[in-house]
Amino acid sequence: MAEKRTEIATLGEFGLIDHIHERIKLQQPTSLSGIGDDAAVIDAGGEVMLLSTDMLVEGVHFDLAYTPLQHLGFKAVSVNVSDIAAMNGTPHQVVVSLGLSNRFSVEAVDALYEGMRAACDQYKVDLVGGDTSASPSGLIISVSILGRTLKGKEVYRRGAADNDILCVTGDLGGAYIGLQVLEREKEVYLTNPSMQPELEKHQYCVGRQLRPIARMDVIHELNELGIRPTSMIDVSDGLASDLLHITKHSRVGVRIFEDKIPIDESAFQTALEFKLDPYTCALNGGEDYELLFTIHPSDYEKIKNHPDITTIGYVHNNLKEKIMVTKQGTPVPLKAQGWNHFA
Amino acid sequence: MAEKRTEIATLGEFGLIDHIHERIKLQQPTSLSGIGDDAAVIDAGGEVMLLSTDMLVEGVHFDLAYTPLQHLGFKAVSVNVSDIAAMNGTPHQVVVSLGLSNRFSVEAVDALYEGMRAACDQYKVDLVGGDTSASPSGLIISVSILGRTLKGKEVYRRGAADNDILCVTGDLGGAYIGLQVLEREKEVYLTNPSMQPELEKHQYCVGRQLRPIARMDVIHELNELGIRPTSMIDVSDGLASDLLHITKHSRVGVRIFEDKIPIDESAFQTALEFKLDPYTCALNGGEDYELLFTIHPSDYEKIKNHPDITTIGYVHNNLKEKIMVTKQGTPVPLKAQGWNHFA
Repeated sequence: MAEKRTEIATLGEFGLIDHIHERIKLQQPTSLSGIGDDAAVIDAGGEVMLLSTDMLVEGVHFDLAYTPLQHLGFKAVSVNVSDIAAMNGTPHQVVVSLGLSNRFSVEAVDALYEGMRAACDQYKVDLVGGDTSASPSGLIISVSILGRTLKGKEVYRRGAADNDILCVTGDLGGAYIGLQVLEREKEVYLTNPSMQPELEKHQYCVGRQLRPIARMDVIHELNELGIRPTSMIDVSDGLASDLLHITKHSRVGVRIFEDKIPIDESAFQTALEFKLDPYTCALNGGEDYELLFTIHPSDYEKIKNHPDITTIGYVHNNLKEKIMVTKQGTPVPLKAQGWNHFA
Repeated sequence: MAEKRTEIATLGEFGLIDHIHERIKLQQPTSLSGIGDDAAVIDAGGEVMLLSTDMLVEGVHFDLAYTPLQHLGFKAVSVNVSDIAAMNGTPHQVVVSLGLSNRFSVEAVDALYEGMRAACDQYKVDLVGGDTSASPSGLIISVSILGRTLKGKEVYRRGAADNDILCVTGDLGGAYIGLQVLEREKEVYLTNPSMQPELEKHQYCVGRQLRPIARMDVIHELNELGIRPTSMIDVSDGLASDLLHITKHSRVGVRIFEDKIPIDESAFQTALEFKLDPYTCALNGGEDYELLFTIHPSDYEKIKNHPDITTIGYVHNNLKEKIMVTKQGTPVPLKAQGWNHFA
């Protein structure tokens, strides 16, 4: 008897998550919010706990040909901290599960943990547990994180409202452009192993890809400024894709302006060298781990001169209009072009 | 330059965990206890949160040739709930990361989640988040769990003291014996695919292997009886290995009696059929997910007639004596013979 078989690629990652989400019911009174945001929100008296998890798989999320293990360990913690930041929380604890093939030595594991420890120091997070197991093929790193914030201070993807101002931290596209540099250098190396890699002049982008920093600094600053964003997400899949998560959850439309999108100058030049449009890299590249958030218009004065926050557009109530106005003044619809690893 | 390379197998899983643990420092005041127990203990006002994680990797922890995906999903949640039970806590939330190769269809993912949902219903746990990613080879399931208990009610591996009575729930060895049945049936099937598998008469053992139940029932009963175990661990690596974790953390010796070790009658018979010593299976088999705990002698009266708790020995202060007295009255040293997946 032939059973029905639906390829996962037909749903894609987001489709698969929705498909799973629909079938999950919550029953614990302590589960304030479940699947569908950057982290789950859990009642803990006057505070809420924020719980999230992220898995990095060799050959899917990283290539050890050009990824130093220290950086990889750092990144595995950073991407989880970023999820807590995106909920307006402070990270406290992580647990780490490793799957290791016999290619890996104790020294390799030490390098990985050295990177995780550096990240834990930077974010003041404790590594409090884990699981270590064999893996038949590549390296698997699964990190789960527990953060917290005062009850009512947590920020969801769903709170953006008409006239809210859309902000993004830092700059975008660099991580994707850095990946292109690394992929090219790998090709060059495979063709001619005596060639020295040309990474120095692309240091910024390569660093963005290999060792991303979660923007806890901005979370602390917003707190000091007395700003609670109305909605927030971290830019892991790309500006367009992550912005559409906010508009979908908040049931709003949005208008952003291409010429406002912050791109680092060296990343811009490298993109051109690779014959890539820097704005496309910023819109669809992903892995920048910057924060994308909306604020009430009354908070605009407080952040308008912040060197690390750029306002790139605004929210409105026309659900059908989710657009970017190009430099030429043409409105183009925003499209989610996140990666489909299952294709 | 040749770099130093130490094979992970030279340390083994426990050695590797100790090696990692030594290098980790805690800095968050909320981290009450970190690596080295069944779960981390985290301050949350009048309660403590318990955080743990477990990874199941295809080809290491399970073989899809004989593991139905529903059971696998159930087991992935159970083994995590068991870690919370072993801390005397109640499980509340889980997050799940999946790595899926393109062998897996949406229907396969549904079957896996159906099993996880059944476990969530049974243990009253909410699945509140996760991450889904591609995997170049097999299936990877990483579950992290958050539980809680009143502050001071949590139970560590380290509290066993002189004269405490050693107890174990249910029966031991069945899961390992079930694995032998499944491995044999797989061989038979590979040799002659038209043969029908002979699983029914071994239903108990096979069920113990494929669909283990975390002993939350016993945790609730101990609570009702007003018993807080002095130390506790779940039997995942085998009675000997897990008991030695308790003696090491508690700095005590122990004496157990072979004829007290509870073994299910059908498991006993199946072991003999496979020319295995049932007691060796119970001591070293692992994956039973029963609870092994010590109680103060004054609590003995409360549990002595409990149908699901067996007293198998006692704790003493002679650190050098960690022995089992055989049925013949011979004392033999207990040895950790957990699995070394890295060998």
